[in-house]
Amino acid sequence: MKNFAFILVLLNLAASALGQVTYQNLLEADREPGNWLTYSGGYNSQRHSRLEQINRDNVPDLELKWAFQMRTLEDVETTPLVVDGIMYLTEPPSNAHAVDTRTGRTFWSYTRELPDETHTCCGQVNRGLAMLGEKLYLGTVDAFLVALDAKTGSVLWEVEVADRLEGYSITVAPLVVKDKVIVGVSGGEFGIRGFLDAYDAETGKRVWRFYTVPAPGEPGHDSWEGDDWKTGGAPTWITGSFDPALNLIYWGTGNPSPDFNGELRPGDNLYTDCVIALDADTGQLKWYFQFTPHDVWDWDAAQIPVLVDAEFEGRMRKLMLWPNRNAFYYVLDRETGELLLVKQFARQNWAQGMDSRGRPIIKLEALPTEKGIIIWPGIQGAMNWFSPSYSPLTGLLYFPVRHVPTFISTGDIDYDPGAMFLGSRWTGMPDDPSWASIQALVPQTGEVKWEYPLHRDVWTGLLSTAGHLVFGGSVEGQFFALDTATGEELWRTPLGGMVIAAPVTYLTDGKQRVSIAAGNTIFTFGLD
Amino acid sequence: MKNFAFILVLLNLAASALGQVTYQNLLEADREPGNWLTYSGGYNSQRHSRLEQINRDNVPDLELKWAFQMRTLEDVETTPLVVDGIMYLTEPPSNAHAVDTRTGRTFWSYTRELPDETHTCCGQVNRGLAMLGEKLYLGTVDAFLVALDAKTGSVLWEVEVADRLEGYSITVAPLVVKDKVIVGVSGGEFGIRGFLDAYDAETGKRVWRFYTVPAPGEPGHDSWEGDDWKTGGAPTWITGSFDPALNLIYWGTGNPSPDFNGELRPGDNLYTDCVIALDADTGQLKWYFQFTPHDVWDWDAAQIPVLVDAEFEGRMRKLMLWPNRNAFYYVLDRETGELLLVKQFARQNWAQGMDSRGRPIIKLEALPTEKGIIIWPGIQGAMNWFSPSYSPLTGLLYFPVRHVPTFISTGDIDYDPGAMFLGSRWTGMPDDPSWASIQALVPQTGEVKWEYPLHRDVWTGLLSTAGHLVFGGSVEGQFFALDTATGEELWRTPLGGMVIAAPVTYLTDGKQRVSIAAGNTIFTFGLD
Repeated sequence: MKNFAFILVLLNLAASALGQVTYQNLLEADREPGNWLTYSGGYNSQRHSRLEQINRDNVPDLELKWAFQMRTLEDVETTPLVVDGIMYLTEPPSNAHAVDTRTGRTFWSYTRELPDETHTCCGQVNRGLAMLGEKLYLGTVDAFLVALDAKTGSVLWEVEVADRLEGYSITVAPLVVKDKVIVGVSGGEFGIRGFLDAYDAETGKRVWRFYTVPAPGEPGHDSWEGDDWKTGGAPTWITGSFDPALNLIYWGTGNPSPDFNGELRPGDNLYTDCVIALDADTGQLKWYFQFTPHDVWDWDAAQIPVLVDAEFEGRMRKLMLWPNRNAFYYVLDRETGELLLVKQFARQNWAQGMDSRGRPIIKLEALPTEKGIIIWPGIQGAMNWFSPSYSPLTGLLYFPVRHVPTFISTGDIDYDPGAMFLGSRWTGMPDDPSWASIQALVPQTGEVKWEYPLHRDVWTGLLSTAGHLVFGGSVEGQFFALDTATGEELWRTPLGGMVIAAPVTYLTDGKQRVSIAAGNTIFTFGLD
Repeated sequence: MKNFAFILVLLNLAASALGQVTYQNLLEADREPGNWLTYSGGYNSQRHSRLEQINRDNVPDLELKWAFQMRTLEDVETTPLVVDGIMYLTEPPSNAHAVDTRTGRTFWSYTRELPDETHTCCGQVNRGLAMLGEKLYLGTVDAFLVALDAKTGSVLWEVEVADRLEGYSITVAPLVVKDKVIVGVSGGEFGIRGFLDAYDAETGKRVWRFYTVPAPGEPGHDSWEGDDWKTGGAPTWITGSFDPALNLIYWGTGNPSPDFNGELRPGDNLYTDCVIALDADTGQLKWYFQFTPHDVWDWDAAQIPVLVDAEFEGRMRKLMLWPNRNAFYYVLDRETGELLLVKQFARQNWAQGMDSRGRPIIKLEALPTEKGIIIWPGIQGAMNWFSPSYSPLTGLLYFPVRHVPTFISTGDIDYDPGAMFLGSRWTGMPDDPSWASIQALVPQTGEVKWEYPLHRDVWTGLLSTAGHLVFGGSVEGQFFALDTATGEELWRTPLGGMVIAAPVTYLTDGKQRVSIAAGNTIFTFGLD
């Protein structure tokens, strides 16, 4: 009884200390650096924190404050939220925990019962939660959106977003915009027809849906032939951004289906591999930009739109920065979608260059054949879904870069609902020339300011802070802090598991903490 | 190719830096505190280190140096060995790794293919390795003893110690004595007939076997009736100690089979719940002491014999200190087996007291019945297999104590080879009054010098150091350092997984490190 009473006391403490997250909080997330309120740290997705207690002088003194081990053999991809001292995080496949940021102790856990059959291409993963009021929003691999009570972890409502048996799943962290929960779907390898949804945050009622593959009669449909659009892909599996002044939601879309074999789906295959700009209230398309038309290399534009207001060629503009999976870096005017800059940032052998509108001029020898070709970047891209970071203090954009080729060959395939829909075979290269790095780019020019070399691969997200630090991790399990100005490595510690998540920072009892998932564990560091 | 070459370089470095462990090294383990050479840190099993870089003044500054995550959902029970900068550790069920103590990076891994059917009562676990020369010795849950090349992890030889289908398994860390590998078996819940084996360390040939349940005609057999001895239990599942001067191996033995229901096996059931003293060369029994004759509560004497030479009642004696699972603390003369002291150290309701030879006077109401009884300590004991520590600097014995009752009732059962052989049902108590602690005892008197309170349970091993620290962990996942003299908590960090292993300390590039398994991860701490 003693223990039970103790837990009740803790729960009460948790409840009384529990903060409500309002839309106003989300709008001003950067002014509230003690919390981490959205997947990307705020609507502009800069992943920059004003906290500076941990800085380039004292970062070598970082100590482990606590670890939180999960009961999974998956490498964890979650980015936690932190609100008033409580961390909300997800565990594969579709579970959630509320954890005391002082100790790593669990307040509550939500464990989702899943059906035997779910369809995920690449691990039964989840990348995180969204929060509004005292509700948390969780997407599940059986393609539901679930609202949890942040005080107790109990289910308030759940809605079926799509039919898992048709190959849909949800791995993305939702995004709360005003009174709505925006959520996308995975399934680009299963021949889904992609969409982005908005749900009423209070009731779970769907407010709008934007199909990322247009039906007959809709704009963009003429980029498809016959019935190809019905299984056209364009999933929406990485969290987007929001510009409150323009009232636009920006979201990246994934590859066309079937993957790789473009002969099975002639045309540009809109809106695959695009960024789409949608009216936040209605879901109507305002503009789009397609990075890789008629993609035959699996280059989802599943990147996070980084929103920056900065001078560009002499005048202040509302920019969107986008290092794409296809090895090119793009700057768009996020009001109009106008292309302002496109520049190669990683090794590639598929494009001779870009035309004036940013459409790639493709090398014929880069098209996959039955015999097979070597493609740079490889099918996992030069970037992928990794979270970049932008520091308003340095004015630099930080992101991980993969220089990793793939050998791919094409093959025929028939569509079978729920089954993998891939027109190819691929392998890594036996004499592997791969490497990776963290790049710091001057956003307006694409000039590389510094580069921090890594080994064969990278899957980390990044965080920049007012302490002049960039935090990130390696596939070998190192967690590191770099100098924002020079890229110099100031600290690192091996955590024993692949870093395939993004770091967050926040305050616990007034003291700065940095947390990162590595392997199946969340590690939290701080000074004394 | 670049990466492959890099790995080769590392392997070569490992090979060239690789230390040979000689019998002389093992004899003088305490003079070599930079290494951790046996499961219990040396033949006397004091688990005390002369290292003092980390001490009661600077321990709050401990930093995480690296973590090593294992691909298992078991809570890891391994105690690593460390030889010349390389850590050798086991992973459940029966795997091993060699790890660089500078970085946690793996040099090699051995993954044992296991048959579908193995028999372990309480998790597919392993507690560690033994080493001699450049060979490592690993017991497996399919009851083999395997010799691995410490340079490469490849198998040099393996021998079947017992038939897994009869309920045997090996979870114990073997002990190298001279040119032999001593290894025990688990299976007390499966009606095995226990034994302790010695194998030639070079060839794997068995040199001797001592059956812990005597056959007809052997001394002690008259403590059994009929054929009960054939399934009598007495497993040997925790690593023993060795006195080179006396040439005696000391080893604890486990419960009689079937567990709990004593009516099915009348008699004292020798040598269950004993410490046995065996001639190291021949395996012949020199003496024994039975802590719990005719045990009906599952109180394996699976504790580690702590060997101390100290003054006792006015003269120097060769002592053996033994806080037993049955809630009594024993001091024996380890030359003769003479009982020098027995004293209660935890709450108990089963014994009125002890007679002059240390035989318990049992309360009838403590015998399990069909209706059931509440027993203190519970079936997991007041101690269990946790490693104690003795500091020659303070002259105190440190060990974890459980004050945890159980409700048990008896039932009939037939023996079925390989199946659980338990004459009872049991449960925890609904209104749980449990607690636990770390105790510091004056060995000669049993006087409690200090007590560090814990919550409902404890499963940690302990380590004491010349830095005046006792390291240990909690089931809630805290790793802590206490003042050896006062028990004051000087530092702790939550590691997110149950601590059910023992800490070790050693030098890496001349700097002191402390490592502990928590959950499925090894955490390594150090100062700058």
